[in-house]
Amino acid sequence: MLETRTEHDLLGDREVPADSYWGIHTLRAMENFPITGRTIATNPHLIRGIAYVKWAAASANEKLGILDGPRAEAISQACKEIVDGRWHEQFVVDVIQGGAGTSTNMNANEVIANRALEILGHQRGDYERLHPNEHVNLSQSTNDVYPTAVNISTIFAIEGLLDALRVLQNAFTTKSLEFADTVKMGRTQLQDAVPMTLGQEFGTYAVMIEEDRARLAEAALLVHEINLGATAIGTGLNAPAGYAEVACSDLGALTGLPLVLATDLVEATQDVGQFVHLSGVLKRVAVKLSKVCNDLRLLSSGPRAGLNEINLPPVQAGSSIMPGKVNPVIPEVLNQVAYEVIGNDVTITMAAESGQLQLNAFEPIIVHSLSEGMRHLGAACRILADRCVLGITANTELLRARVEDSIGLVTALNPYIGYTASTRIAQEALISGRRVADLVIEAGLLDREELDRLLSPEHLANLRVAGEKPHATAVVEEV
Amino acid sequence: MLETRTEHDLLGDREVPADSYWGIHTLRAMENFPITGRTIATNPHLIRGIAYVKWAAASANEKLGILDGPRAEAISQACKEIVDGRWHEQFVVDVIQGGAGTSTNMNANEVIANRALEILGHQRGDYERLHPNEHVNLSQSTNDVYPTAVNISTIFAIEGLLDALRVLQNAFTTKSLEFADTVKMGRTQLQDAVPMTLGQEFGTYAVMIEEDRARLAEAALLVHEINLGATAIGTGLNAPAGYAEVACSDLGALTGLPLVLATDLVEATQDVGQFVHLSGVLKRVAVKLSKVCNDLRLLSSGPRAGLNEINLPPVQAGSSIMPGKVNPVIPEVLNQVAYEVIGNDVTITMAAESGQLQLNAFEPIIVHSLSEGMRHLGAACRILADRCVLGITANTELLRARVEDSIGLVTALNPYIGYTASTRIAQEALISGRRVADLVIEAGLLDREELDRLLSPEHLANLRVAGEKPHATAVVEEV
Amino acid sequence: MLETRTEHDLLGDREVPADSYWGIHTLRAMENFPITGRTIATNPHLIRGIAYVKWAAASANEKLGILDGPRAEAISQACKEIVDGRWHEQFVVDVIQGGAGTSTNMNANEVIANRALEILGHQRGDYERLHPNEHVNLSQSTNDVYPTAVNISTIFAIEGLLDALRVLQNAFTTKSLEFADTVKMGRTQLQDAVPMTLGQEFGTYAVMIEEDRARLAEAALLVHEINLGATAIGTGLNAPAGYAEVACSDLGALTGLPLVLATDLVEATQDVGQFVHLSGVLKRVAVKLSKVCNDLRLLSSGPRAGLNEINLPPVQAGSSIMPGKVNPVIPEVLNQVAYEVIGNDVTITMAAESGQLQLNAFEPIIVHSLSEGMRHLGAACRILADRCVLGITANTELLRARVEDSIGLVTALNPYIGYTASTRIAQEALISGRRVADLVIEAGLLDREELDRLLSPEHLANLRVAGEKPHATAVVEEV
Amino acid sequence: MLETRTEHDLLGDREVPADSYWGIHTLRAMENFPITGRTIATNPHLIRGIAYVKWAAASANEKLGILDGPRAEAISQACKEIVDGRWHEQFVVDVIQGGAGTSTNMNANEVIANRALEILGHQRGDYERLHPNEHVNLSQSTNDVYPTAVNISTIFAIEGLLDALRVLQNAFTTKSLEFADTVKMGRTQLQDAVPMTLGQEFGTYAVMIEEDRARLAEAALLVHEINLGATAIGTGLNAPAGYAEVACSDLGALTGLPLVLATDLVEATQDVGQFVHLSGVLKRVAVKLSKVCNDLRLLSSGPRAGLNEINLPPVQAGSSIMPGKVNPVIPEVLNQVAYEVIGNDVTITMAAESGQLQLNAFEPIIVHSLSEGMRHLGAACRILADRCVLGITANTELLRARVEDSIGLVTALNPYIGYTASTRIAQEALISGRRVADLVIEAGLLDREELDRLLSPEHLANLRVAGEKPHATAVVEEV
Repeated sequence: MLETRTEHDLLGDREVPADSYWGIHTLRAMENFPITGRTIATNPHLIRGIAYVKWAAASANEKLGILDGPRAEAISQACKEIVDGRWHEQFVVDVIQGGAGTSTNMNANEVIANRALEILGHQRGDYERLHPNEHVNLSQSTNDVYPTAVNISTIFAIEGLLDALRVLQNAFTTKSLEFADTVKMGRTQLQDAVPMTLGQEFGTYAVMIEEDRARLAEAALLVHEINLGATAIGTGLNAPAGYAEVACSDLGALTGLPLVLATDLVEATQDVGQFVHLSGVLKRVAVKLSKVCNDLRLLSSGPRAGLNEINLPPVQAGSSIMPGKVNPVIPEVLNQVAYEVIGNDVTITMAAESGQLQLNAFEPIIVHSLSEGMRHLGAACRILADRCVLGITANTELLRARVEDSIGLVTALNPYIGYTASTRIAQEALISGRRVADLVIEAGLLDREELDRLLSPEHLANLRVAGEKPHATAVVEEV
Repeated sequence: MLETRTEHDLLGDREVPADSYWGIHTLRAMENFPITGRTIATNPHLIRGIAYVKWAAASANEKLGILDGPRAEAISQACKEIVDGRWHEQFVVDVIQGGAGTSTNMNANEVIANRALEILGHQRGDYERLHPNEHVNLSQSTNDVYPTAVNISTIFAIEGLLDALRVLQNAFTTKSLEFADTVKMGRTQLQDAVPMTLGQEFGTYAVMIEEDRARLAEAALLVHEINLGATAIGTGLNAPAGYAEVACSDLGALTGLPLVLATDLVEATQDVGQFVHLSGVLKRVAVKLSKVCNDLRLLSSGPRAGLNEINLPPVQAGSSIMPGKVNPVIPEVLNQVAYEVIGNDVTITMAAESGQLQLNAFEPIIVHSLSEGMRHLGAACRILADRCVLGITANTELLRARVEDSIGLVTALNPYIGYTASTRIAQEALISGRRVADLVIEAGLLDREELDRLLSPEHLANLRVAGEKPHATAVVEEV
Repeated sequence: MLETRTEHDLLGDREVPADSYWGIHTLRAMENFPITGRTIATNPHLIRGIAYVKWAAASANEKLGILDGPRAEAISQACKEIVDGRWHEQFVVDVIQGGAGTSTNMNANEVIANRALEILGHQRGDYERLHPNEHVNLSQSTNDVYPTAVNISTIFAIEGLLDALRVLQNAFTTKSLEFADTVKMGRTQLQDAVPMTLGQEFGTYAVMIEEDRARLAEAALLVHEINLGATAIGTGLNAPAGYAEVACSDLGALTGLPLVLATDLVEATQDVGQFVHLSGVLKRVAVKLSKVCNDLRLLSSGPRAGLNEINLPPVQAGSSIMPGKVNPVIPEVLNQVAYEVIGNDVTITMAAESGQLQLNAFEPIIVHSLSEGMRHLGAACRILADRCVLGITANTELLRARVEDSIGLVTALNPYIGYTASTRIAQEALISGRRVADLVIEAGLLDREELDRLLSPEHLANLRVAGEKPHATAVVEEV
Repeated sequence: MLETRTEHDLLGDREVPADSYWGIHTLRAMENFPITGRTIATNPHLIRGIAYVKWAAASANEKLGILDGPRAEAISQACKEIVDGRWHEQFVVDVIQGGAGTSTNMNANEVIANRALEILGHQRGDYERLHPNEHVNLSQSTNDVYPTAVNISTIFAIEGLLDALRVLQNAFTTKSLEFADTVKMGRTQLQDAVPMTLGQEFGTYAVMIEEDRARLAEAALLVHEINLGATAIGTGLNAPAGYAEVACSDLGALTGLPLVLATDLVEATQDVGQFVHLSGVLKRVAVKLSKVCNDLRLLSSGPRAGLNEINLPPVQAGSSIMPGKVNPVIPEVLNQVAYEVIGNDVTITMAAESGQLQLNAFEPIIVHSLSEGMRHLGAACRILADRCVLGITANTELLRARVEDSIGLVTALNPYIGYTASTRIAQEALISGRRVADLVIEAGLLDREELDRLLSPEHLANLRVAGEKPHATAVVEEV
């Protein structure tokens, strides 16, 4: 039989398993929110975040003389253990929960209290000696503790995503250099436009990601502003004078993060603008990564009836029925994660818009959606780099042949052979189906050597700077 | 040391754990898609769905003479076990995966093959005797197997949600009857409008849910159309004549579902319209349930500084700091699930729109988003019924007093005392702050008894039918 | 100087232009909602819808003896004129307006009253004789008039879209027949899969649209349920007994639509589920049309460096700089309309979810988003049919050559040459870069005639029915 | 009969109205895109933006010696006139158009060319003398002209919105000061929490908007980076060396904006990340303004059966049937605009994600959605300030009475009377229904004077700083 201990709350008595660190409030929450079956422990950043907050609070309370040394030390020790990864399995409330994070806060208070009791040599549940609310939650309210913990956890999550994005950016940069000499047709609206290099194409992706990283890092600054010490609706009620400043400073010291106390705590307590903002930036990142994956899938389409410009490394059999078929499964998985992130943004938007008066009750779904999105996107970036981008090869000869074949080539030659000749060659090529390069040479407009120079990667990549003066049909004497 | 067996695919040899039922294709997929850490086994409906499909395929293959009896029987037995809930832990590929479901199909082929080998008395991995692709996947392609399995699993999920909605509807009906005599002010745009009964208000929610159930049941019909037998891009290639019809019929018999073979298999194979449609209907359900929860939270606001019309049963302490505070956590959790469902709809929309040519590669995220949404929404409906709605009480006297107090009452009395008197009373009430009921009686426009009759629940609930002729200021002789 | 007349409301007196049919309530609304600069007259369906409703109301009021004949007739005549397209320019309130449609209703009441006064030979503004509220709005409330008018207008809009979809479907059917003999490679995940015909590919689009039309027609049924007679919050207050039934029946007769009175008018008055539902179905239509346009743009990519399977008719120069470039601008415009519709669905969702208690105050943005989406999508369908699809040509020889070239061909030949030979040929083709068809013939696996038959359109389009028994490698005696 | 002139393009000859400034390319586009019926002239910022770009290009071309003085001057003059608001009605292509902005660019080229011809004393259509493409579009491509013009127009639009936001912020600040002494109950999750001032509540809104303005201003920086000179896909093809730098510098000088040339023009040409980003920030602004409006509607609910804390100024009659009813129509209209902006964000997201390879073809819908959203939101902010916020009054006495009545008061008194007494008082109040303030005084816990001080606005607004040491139940000697 399961051994239990009795705990009490305003609704009455309940038995909780004797060896559990969580208590009656957590039990109620588990019963009230059997929604996803996934506990908040699936978001370790959040568990670490709240442990840091409780640790900083205990430290501040002790400094301000309202918490005695032994209790403060025991609480701090329990928090440190959680930060180090212990006891996470005791955080058992559902990721989707009512109550603006109260259940997460209560779960933390109970786990920390019971672990601290153990450290002090007492029994779990002996709350007379160290109480989840009166000691662990001292000078705090869910209204400030939860948002602050969420901010901390979000910073951790962003760091992880930034790392993954850097890995992917580096992969694209590597390939960009490798493909610097591969000439190919550029396209607008899927129609042949003008020549460029495959190195430029891949370099573009690296530049995009670099910019996205910068934007994400900027957005991360917003979650460094915290409302710790705000307590109920931002009044600071029930916290001693100076508490907010000390607690915020201690939290910064413990986490090593440059945290800032919000200027207006009433505003900071009800506002979830930082998450809407961050989610918008995350969506931007997802949109652009998805676009890159769309391109990779398109460029590698074929092998015989597609563009067939590049080859993605095979990572698994592509079909249960077609021999030898290999599919672009790695870009496909990133596409799907991007769609998830974009959907999550709508979830977060609605949750934010629905906040009423002095508190947003829907922060748990915001946190859940945001943290899942960042985690999945980071994972997808890493596998895209490792299992796809770095192994890409180019079909260099085919790409070059298409350039010479393409009508779009005449646009590139426009400055050298003139608009009239260009148009004539283009029409001839369209009607005859012949190769533009051949027609240009036959017509004596350019010789092979000149053409090769104009189609050299060095020339193409530096068109704008090279600054050859365009064929000046437009300069006329009289109007 | 972990014992292994060697398996082979087009990329080479790999070791898989000797006791695993999954094989090399599954292993590759696990390595390729470390995205969410959640396996497809978290969606048991899908595992059962694919097992049913494989079972029906084996049965059809045997009937059409291309699979021998012993193998067919062993495969069927393995599938039956999975349908019954065994071996789900062997379905280990990630819920978000590239490849249009290929990895899920391969995972199923391997688990079924190895379990069937066991049943036949052979070793796991002895694919010469019974092969995941050549026997379990015979006459099939991921292109038809996966969508069909997804459809089956979706039907199961809808059934669960419909049950939960019925429970919630019944709860509202119960309360509607209980509150039939409670008179209150109705509101438009949050402003006092005219009297109604609380029974009508709760009855409305029951009617809404009933209609939503009807719409959801309609949408469910769309996923009863399957493309089994389509094989590659809907051509039916590699399946014997008549296979599609036999397999579909067998699948209907095994599952007990009235499945229909799609008329145009090429279309059915690339189209995910049914999921976009269903997601749209699910979103409708979520929107309306969220609106109901918004109302419940608003009507129970207070207790002293809010509307305070109804009381939600307390299910947990509401604050870590405010004594006695109880929050509407159950409606809040449903709100959040609704936001999740609404966000998922965007995810599904993008995944559907991105499908190219003969196949949609992004069905895994569609299935994941849809099934999670239905599961969470069903869970939230059940707890809303059990832990909130059924325990709601009304503050009857306060509600009645407000009606008599309200300016809006004059609108209700309009037909009986005339527009001119109504307007006068309204103005007097606004200026003096006095109670409308008192003013009406004082002015001799109605006596208490008449007023009571006009404000009786019987009268209010039957206004339209009762058909008292309005005060006919508008009927005039001459224009 | 502008001549004016003085009108009065609860806020005081105001001058309105003497020749305007609208009055003081409309004036206030114009001043309050200078949001888009677009008046409700930009949605003629809505203006006609509300005129029909006012007409039916006048008719019912007369029948029930609360409106005298002359006034009823004058109101009816004014309404008929509006239905016929007159006076729409008098509907001047903004499409985005606060107040749950009150301003639209008031605008209609005033225009109809003033036009009716004219018909009766009186001055505009002489409301003693015929009053916007007391006569035109008799037995009505915005709560029932506006939703009913919106439903009617939505039915009109759906009819227009259904027509446009039929035109587009017919265009695809036409091309499907025209391309019935064009053999090409089918693709999954952008990788070569197995052969099919271009006729099948285009036929798929016709089938998709046909199904979408059916779903849209189903959703249209939902807006045939109206709440006319509900008046304030659905109570029927201030309307005579029997009014709802008579008015609904008269409205059905006037419009020729099979309208049904909602069973529960309180529910029907607050519920906007039908619009969320319809928007979801509209989104489904948009998603699928967008997918079709994505395909068309992809298949026509090139001409030299793309898939180049089909040619879209040129409709305008594609570039201000590249000679001869022609872009797929018609599919591109439909894509954009689809994105608009999908975004609108989120707008509608949020507006629906935000409805509180007995009325949704945000119906104006719902109507606006929905009607714009249907109008734009209908227009885009028509130009897609006329200016793109019907003029598409196929590059038949290229398509055939690619089939013979493609590795995917071996999958199609699998049943005839066996899996082992297939795999060998595939590998040889991949290594040598040679054409699969040539290799198969060289190896003596098939002769040219057999191959031609297997690649004939007749064969490909009937693979499943033709029912050639696959090469039975899987049938073995012993396990 | 309409007089016409004949113009020619690659599709043949067409007649255009003789007096039109637009020409054949514009004519084709009008015929191809009859989608919304709204021309790009409805976005004057865009027209001005493109005129500035053409002006800067002419200037740069002249400086670089490829455009002669007279033509450059005539083009510049024409552009200046457009910037000053003339000829906008000649911009007649639809706001939703295929072709990545080509039609907008062509429309501008034609209008400017024909106006310049006039200025030079020539006939409209005499393109031998001054050609839309060869002179007006010289050194340009739609690929760089359109995105740059869009960026400029976006900057103008943001400025307008920032102004409107400042007006609204000031209105809230004004009321915040006015309500500094009004004590009221704060709420979390719609349940009574602790006392605060109405000044704090309104001050919060001002702070929110201030922060949103800062975020929007930051996002505006992103659109100051332009790709002018990129020409086809960012190669700079057909533009002389140094053109990009000169044109960008001239554009900066003409507009007075601190524009920056993008470092990587290939990347800048295909990337629309800045619009996704900006739309995300705009959505953030919309979400928060919508939340504020939700609060205003809630706080002003009633008058008798609602919260009735504040009164919004009446701006129009609220009902066609209920005498004296006034509705919160101004906040309601902003809510709807916010939903539109949020939906637009999804539209923009999809359009951005669908961009392929070297160009995003869907920028027109991005621009349209973004500019409409900003314009509508700005308009709604201004009317919210002028017609609602500034006229709000508070029901001060009622608010104060509720504080004394509220159970939540005990939380505020907790530090002064202790947790045990607090809990006892709370329970007594709940059971007896009596006022908390009275119970506290009766019990001798506080006298009236002390209570008044604790409930004074000065005290409440400075709780955190005031720093009264909480009742130290938690400080104990021994553990």
